[in-house]
Amino acid sequence: MLTTHPFDDDKLHEECGVFGILNHPQAAAITALGLHALQHRGQEAAGIVSFDGDFHVEHTMGLVGDHFSTEAVISKLKGPAAIGHVRYATTGAAMMRNVQPLFAELEFGGFALAHNGNLTNAQSLRRQLVRRGCLFQSTTDTEVIVHLMALARGGSPVDRMIEAVRQVEGAFSLVAITPKQVIGVRDALGVRPLVLGKLGDSYIMASESCALDIVGADFVRDVEPGEMIVLDESGVHSMRPFQQQPRRLCIFEYIYFARPDSVIEGSSVYEARRRIGEELAIEAHVPADAIVPVPDSGVPAALGYATQSGIPFELGIIRNHYVGRTFIEPTDQIRHLGVKLKHNANRRVIEGKRVILVDDSIVRGTTSKKIVEMVRAAGAAEVHMRISSPPTAHPCFYGIDTPEQDKLLAHRFSVEEMREFIQADSLAFISFDGLYRAMGEPRRDPDALRYCDACFTGDYPIRLTDRDERDSIENLRPALRA
Amino acid sequence: MLTTHPFDDDKLHEECGVFGILNHPQAAAITALGLHALQHRGQEAAGIVSFDGDFHVEHTMGLVGDHFSTEAVISKLKGPAAIGHVRYATTGAAMMRNVQPLFAELEFGGFALAHNGNLTNAQSLRRQLVRRGCLFQSTTDTEVIVHLMALARGGSPVDRMIEAVRQVEGAFSLVAITPKQVIGVRDALGVRPLVLGKLGDSYIMASESCALDIVGADFVRDVEPGEMIVLDESGVHSMRPFQQQPRRLCIFEYIYFARPDSVIEGSSVYEARRRIGEELAIEAHVPADAIVPVPDSGVPAALGYATQSGIPFELGIIRNHYVGRTFIEPTDQIRHLGVKLKHNANRRVIEGKRVILVDDSIVRGTTSKKIVEMVRAAGAAEVHMRISSPPTAHPCFYGIDTPEQDKLLAHRFSVEEMREFIQADSLAFISFDGLYRAMGEPRRDPDALRYCDACFTGDYPIRLTDRDERDSIENLRPALRA
Amino acid sequence: MLTTHPFDDDKLHEECGVFGILNHPQAAAITALGLHALQHRGQEAAGIVSFDGDFHVEHTMGLVGDHFSTEAVISKLKGPAAIGHVRYATTGAAMMRNVQPLFAELEFGGFALAHNGNLTNAQSLRRQLVRRGCLFQSTTDTEVIVHLMALARGGSPVDRMIEAVRQVEGAFSLVAITPKQVIGVRDALGVRPLVLGKLGDSYIMASESCALDIVGADFVRDVEPGEMIVLDESGVHSMRPFQQQPRRLCIFEYIYFARPDSVIEGSSVYEARRRIGEELAIEAHVPADAIVPVPDSGVPAALGYATQSGIPFELGIIRNHYVGRTFIEPTDQIRHLGVKLKHNANRRVIEGKRVILVDDSIVRGTTSKKIVEMVRAAGAAEVHMRISSPPTAHPCFYGIDTPEQDKLLAHRFSVEEMREFIQADSLAFISFDGLYRAMGEPRRDPDALRYCDACFTGDYPIRLTDRDERDSIENLRPALRA
Amino acid sequence: MLTTHPFDDDKLHEECGVFGILNHPQAAAITALGLHALQHRGQEAAGIVSFDGDFHVEHTMGLVGDHFSTEAVISKLKGPAAIGHVRYATTGAAMMRNVQPLFAELEFGGFALAHNGNLTNAQSLRRQLVRRGCLFQSTTDTEVIVHLMALARGGSPVDRMIEAVRQVEGAFSLVAITPKQVIGVRDALGVRPLVLGKLGDSYIMASESCALDIVGADFVRDVEPGEMIVLDESGVHSMRPFQQQPRRLCIFEYIYFARPDSVIEGSSVYEARRRIGEELAIEAHVPADAIVPVPDSGVPAALGYATQSGIPFELGIIRNHYVGRTFIEPTDQIRHLGVKLKHNANRRVIEGKRVILVDDSIVRGTTSKKIVEMVRAAGAAEVHMRISSPPTAHPCFYGIDTPEQDKLLAHRFSVEEMREFIQADSLAFISFDGLYRAMGEPRRDPDALRYCDACFTGDYPIRLTDRDERDSIENLRPALRA
Repeated sequence: MLTTHPFDDDKLHEECGVFGILNHPQAAAITALGLHALQHRGQEAAGIVSFDGDFHVEHTMGLVGDHFSTEAVISKLKGPAAIGHVRYATTGAAMMRNVQPLFAELEFGGFALAHNGNLTNAQSLRRQLVRRGCLFQSTTDTEVIVHLMALARGGSPVDRMIEAVRQVEGAFSLVAITPKQVIGVRDALGVRPLVLGKLGDSYIMASESCALDIVGADFVRDVEPGEMIVLDESGVHSMRPFQQQPRRLCIFEYIYFARPDSVIEGSSVYEARRRIGEELAIEAHVPADAIVPVPDSGVPAALGYATQSGIPFELGIIRNHYVGRTFIEPTDQIRHLGVKLKHNANRRVIEGKRVILVDDSIVRGTTSKKIVEMVRAAGAAEVHMRISSPPTAHPCFYGIDTPEQDKLLAHRFSVEEMREFIQADSLAFISFDGLYRAMGEPRRDPDALRYCDACFTGDYPIRLTDRDERDSIENLRPALRA
Repeated sequence: MLTTHPFDDDKLHEECGVFGILNHPQAAAITALGLHALQHRGQEAAGIVSFDGDFHVEHTMGLVGDHFSTEAVISKLKGPAAIGHVRYATTGAAMMRNVQPLFAELEFGGFALAHNGNLTNAQSLRRQLVRRGCLFQSTTDTEVIVHLMALARGGSPVDRMIEAVRQVEGAFSLVAITPKQVIGVRDALGVRPLVLGKLGDSYIMASESCALDIVGADFVRDVEPGEMIVLDESGVHSMRPFQQQPRRLCIFEYIYFARPDSVIEGSSVYEARRRIGEELAIEAHVPADAIVPVPDSGVPAALGYATQSGIPFELGIIRNHYVGRTFIEPTDQIRHLGVKLKHNANRRVIEGKRVILVDDSIVRGTTSKKIVEMVRAAGAAEVHMRISSPPTAHPCFYGIDTPEQDKLLAHRFSVEEMREFIQADSLAFISFDGLYRAMGEPRRDPDALRYCDACFTGDYPIRLTDRDERDSIENLRPALRA
Repeated sequence: MLTTHPFDDDKLHEECGVFGILNHPQAAAITALGLHALQHRGQEAAGIVSFDGDFHVEHTMGLVGDHFSTEAVISKLKGPAAIGHVRYATTGAAMMRNVQPLFAELEFGGFALAHNGNLTNAQSLRRQLVRRGCLFQSTTDTEVIVHLMALARGGSPVDRMIEAVRQVEGAFSLVAITPKQVIGVRDALGVRPLVLGKLGDSYIMASESCALDIVGADFVRDVEPGEMIVLDESGVHSMRPFQQQPRRLCIFEYIYFARPDSVIEGSSVYEARRRIGEELAIEAHVPADAIVPVPDSGVPAALGYATQSGIPFELGIIRNHYVGRTFIEPTDQIRHLGVKLKHNANRRVIEGKRVILVDDSIVRGTTSKKIVEMVRAAGAAEVHMRISSPPTAHPCFYGIDTPEQDKLLAHRFSVEEMREFIQADSLAFISFDGLYRAMGEPRRDPDALRYCDACFTGDYPIRLTDRDERDSIENLRPALRA
Repeated sequence: MLTTHPFDDDKLHEECGVFGILNHPQAAAITALGLHALQHRGQEAAGIVSFDGDFHVEHTMGLVGDHFSTEAVISKLKGPAAIGHVRYATTGAAMMRNVQPLFAELEFGGFALAHNGNLTNAQSLRRQLVRRGCLFQSTTDTEVIVHLMALARGGSPVDRMIEAVRQVEGAFSLVAITPKQVIGVRDALGVRPLVLGKLGDSYIMASESCALDIVGADFVRDVEPGEMIVLDESGVHSMRPFQQQPRRLCIFEYIYFARPDSVIEGSSVYEARRRIGEELAIEAHVPADAIVPVPDSGVPAALGYATQSGIPFELGIIRNHYVGRTFIEPTDQIRHLGVKLKHNANRRVIEGKRVILVDDSIVRGTTSKKIVEMVRAAGAAEVHMRISSPPTAHPCFYGIDTPEQDKLLAHRFSVEEMREFIQADSLAFISFDGLYRAMGEPRRDPDALRYCDACFTGDYPIRLTDRDERDSIENLRPALRA
């Protein structure tokens, strides 16, 4: 199969985006628009739950705009409160029952929950809950939190939610809806982003500020790490269910995940990428004739690189806009043609030139290898690759879909071996210190880290209970498909 | 309705792309890939006809990859010869019977035809044909040619085709398939492009060279204006059905229609756009802090402008990748929010700056007005608009969908009035001479024009029989929906 | 594949039903209901064309109720005039372009035509038309008539239609719509039925009277053989384009095709079937314990047989109501189970009994063989088969889909050999005279036949031009797929 | 809306059918066929769960044959064990999460359950379970049983199932699948049917014997009231979880629900219906010319009536085979036509005659009223209605969907008032004693009832805990939508 699908890119994938709004007569329509703006955080499924006395639930496999765009669907999602979710499903099988928000009837009434992140003790908690007789309908982490709420001793939804989130470990930016509230929570380290916005008299919570922009809402502030925000009729309430800890936002949000027009914890994503490109040009320059971004994610760093180096920025690789398509590859005759569904070399600006390609990351290395080959075939005199992140050598346990460690090129190989693998004339990654400099710090200080960079360093800031159990038990029964 | 659909952009639209291949065991699969590369030339319908002794016909409304991507469909399109078509339907109603290639059984056997362009005497010919008793199934120009072939006195398909195309006026790059040949024709002036490629022992004809690149085929040469190329078992045959005339390729192919990685009549589309940007910066510069392209089509010209002016190129407007979606706009409450489905200002790089926006054209002006407003709302100190084409003041009759002349902003207004309308601080278009300089000529020489620029100048190089009849006859019956 | 589809029954199939109405504000909705009542005449495709100044065309593959049942579809079919068609497609490939009514723009304006029947000189006419340069879009006979109209010298639609239908041979009950009329025509012998009805101020034409009943319309009279009826604003006009000939209605309409509640040329279909059953009991009785119809079409004849013979009528075979389904037959393990998707023996009323099965016809004999086997397996002491039609030994050329003659059991075998083939204890068919007696005549008088019974007798009342040409020409080129 | 849908018939509706098979290589395909044979027991949703080491779950809204008929679907349902379910959803909203079999991961592994019947203490149990922290995903009774199993102390699936079913009250014929077994249970009174069959080395359980017939399986015996049957690798195991009680099969299974070719607890459904018709003719005869069944369910009783009375049986009402369709009813103009989508009077056999209509039941009376009107409009001299069940005056709590009691015509009216309502010349229902005589008993003996006839008598054999609680508590919170 030939595919133009972005998921087949050799990229890491964010697992989710969340959105919630209270007190707007068109809550579901606003939520649909917000999810559309967050579509880059998850393209395989989407869901919205609204409340108008009753709860209304709509899930879909596929893009937000393919389902939540019609009067017929939106008009079913009645009420002034709504939450929504976009999902990147990590399991191959698209499973409708895993689509969020998850809805359940608890003792106090209906409740729905949307989650961006990953729990690191979900399997351990799940085993305990199953042993107590809990029935699981989905294979998501998120359902663990719902069961913990159902079993909580506290009476009110807020009390139960506090009791529940205190038992879970991992990264979680949650948005929940109850008959009286919309609630947002970030884990104690704030690994995944969550922002608070305002649209007239309504309050909004969303994974990124671009989801506020799309509906013209004002950005109020980031939800703080470890903060729970409760929106209700009387306004915005801030609570602190967790002990204070230093913040550790995922640095990959700046490198690749977030939309360039989002601002996270005060920093513009676009500007961060541009600065990383500048640092790269300082650290790892070679003489060249053109700076060529690998579209589209490599563009801001390539602009930074070009500015710093003074070498012309050129669209030497053209992307086909009609992505998301899959074509059959009927025979070997076609396979060996090296069909270029997604990218094409812009031969005239490459031919005879020394080209520096700029990309954001190398995961398995397969795409990088093909792109170097394509650029060389288009006549480049030299092909240098510059990467705006350090080598991705460690899996993420906090909500990013990483391949098994053995498939990470940076885990298997040295940089020189990686260069050999992708057949570039040179290869360089941004250094740890360069990356932190681009983020406005003097260097990467292991004792005062503001970001989670575990995928580069293996320095995991949150306990990995499930992984550690798995490693320590020989006769472990087959892991649940969480 | 809110829409992210590219068609709602205030752009002119190419009406079609064509592709044909002979002598490849996977002809239909190759054609599907070629059409995917030509998808920007028409997104509303697609079709493929193949031949393996019998003709096989498949049409679809929508994108190539939504239908011609499965084994089930491709395996029906058997045979070593195939032609294909992508279509931008100008009529609101999506009509399956208008989807090309058109297939018909003629006296010599089956025949299918795909057409990019527009005939300027189609209605006149059609009326004559209907009077003779011809039944029209579609409302396309293309069917006129098929009827002319059916009625031709000549015996062979090639003779009939020559007889047919000599009777039509207008712009036409045709690709046809018969039981023995794949035939390509460009009109005498070569208004629309058509190239010849080679893939192993197979020959290909396609609207643009990017459709050769996608399957790794070699570019051989442009089909010449007025040339008919016949591919058959014995190879490539060139014929000249028309009297020699100076070439007049559509200049808008360089400005907007063609893909930047295509090379047309020896010129790189990307480089032409970049050079227009440079000329713009020479002609119409103002002091500024950032050059911001209107994505995506404005990017090459903006790069040229930035290079020439020395002002930083910045992605000050971010495009949502998930285009092609339509959302309901349930109430006025949402409408007045100014929902930004497609574009968002990248506030941090705009705030407080003097911004020069670069776009390729202004048609109705509605989108430009919104973009200026959005950039200003994001805090730009000044907003200047630079356009990489001259004012579009005249309708196209040669295959481009232009609105009625009264809706063309440049027809209604002077440049200053247009500036006022879009509320920019300044507005400038590339001059005629600047445009021709960018194309490598000293200036626009009305006596030796190499391009059709009628949409800017009103200087129509091919007779407009239908329009002239319409204008001259008072009591004309309702025009056919061609 | 296992299938419950009625088409897989070993039955002959009517090819079409037609409907037309003028002067009703809900013309399309009425037409949809009428077609639903005629659904038994063709289940594979349906279409409606309405007129309200413009023509509106809707076609569908599948059942009327699957498409023409929604407000969205019906509301597109505006206007006070409409015609419709249900089709049994004879070619394997479901081809949308063959779905009727066929619509074309003629010199006088739009025109649509729906046809029940079959032309016997269609291929001959088609070849002449193609030689003249006519382009055929479909493979239907019907299109021949449309081309003849387009080429007719006459000016008015009615004149052209008369000129066209005089050139065709075969069976045709047509309903057409023009900008001013709804026109119905029956061929000179009236092989296929057509009735005239009245609903308030509106007139209706339909293949059977049950299509009048469904909307509560009054039956006015049969359209006469050779009559053309023109409905227009001034009322009902009768014309006689053909020379007078004796009527020859298809007798199989009474035996199987028509709905039992229809009345055709004065005779109740249900009563005709019952009387055939009575005649069968007189002609071919054997001692037995139960008369069991093969559901559902054998029921009326079985009732007649039971009444005449005094033997109890029993539902010894039960039909699954959920027909029209197809199931996979994954392996031989299942195939040999003899899955009974459509029919099940009602064991308790069969066990130990001498059973007379009554069915309407035997075509290939495959279903009869299975049913005899099933009834015997359920414990019947004897299984006798009685058929309410004579042996079907000849193909129909007048609008009924018959298998190639070699596949007709009655062509290959004597009655005794057929009995052997289906493994019944005895087998009898109604005699020719018995059949005519049931129709109220003294006997089958070859010199004064009121019915077409060619499928039993080979006595074809209308010239078979295409067949005769085919037989006479050795080197005939491959026949068109008509 | 006009509808031909059987559900709009004024009938009671069975809520479900179940099927299970162990030890067949094509278990899912066999299950699909079995469910197709049980389709009359529930047409709105269907599901199959198979096991081959992993559990495979497929649900669909709609008919079995619309989804479970393709290789693609069946091939996903791997393994030698499968259970299936067809469902008549009582709630208006089609809810995918209510479709059975319900699947859950319990401590011992996966488990799926299919249920025909209704629990009478489900709401009471559900409230207790929610209070304990159980999360309910569906609104079905069935999920209560799954939670009870999850919470059971017993270790093995069989022990847990016994513990669970002992806590529930009501009617339940269950089929369940575990990693090692297929389990069937009937409640202590055996209100709903369940049979055991054998196909080669495989055992089958199904709601009716017709589901054995379709795949050629042998009928072994009825599962006994109060019996649990466990199929595993070692064969068939019978257990008795409940105290012995007299059997009380639902008598309506004979009157209407079951297929006529099924045999339940030794009695043929078809013969029972025929005998009821005979009893009716003895009890309530009037002079008449024709016995006309209301198709299709009235046919066997009408045959019995005709045999007993000696009056001809005639198909005086013809049913359109293409049921299950819904048509718009665009305007009052059409509404007042009295469109006859489903039934048409066969005028020729009714006109001038005294007609006895035979139907199986009257629920709301709306359809009966229309049918009497239609028959009278077709010219019947007299219209008498005979019903093969006693008046339906009480709701069913054991798995049949009955309207609210106030809508039951027999609850509101005396027989004479009902006659007046439907406008018949006379109306009679079978007597209680007549009904029991038809079932082979001397009369209805209240002290030794073999059947549940609560819908006629109000004599409920199983406690109605939920109803009684509801009646006794004034301030009850809104009932769960079970």
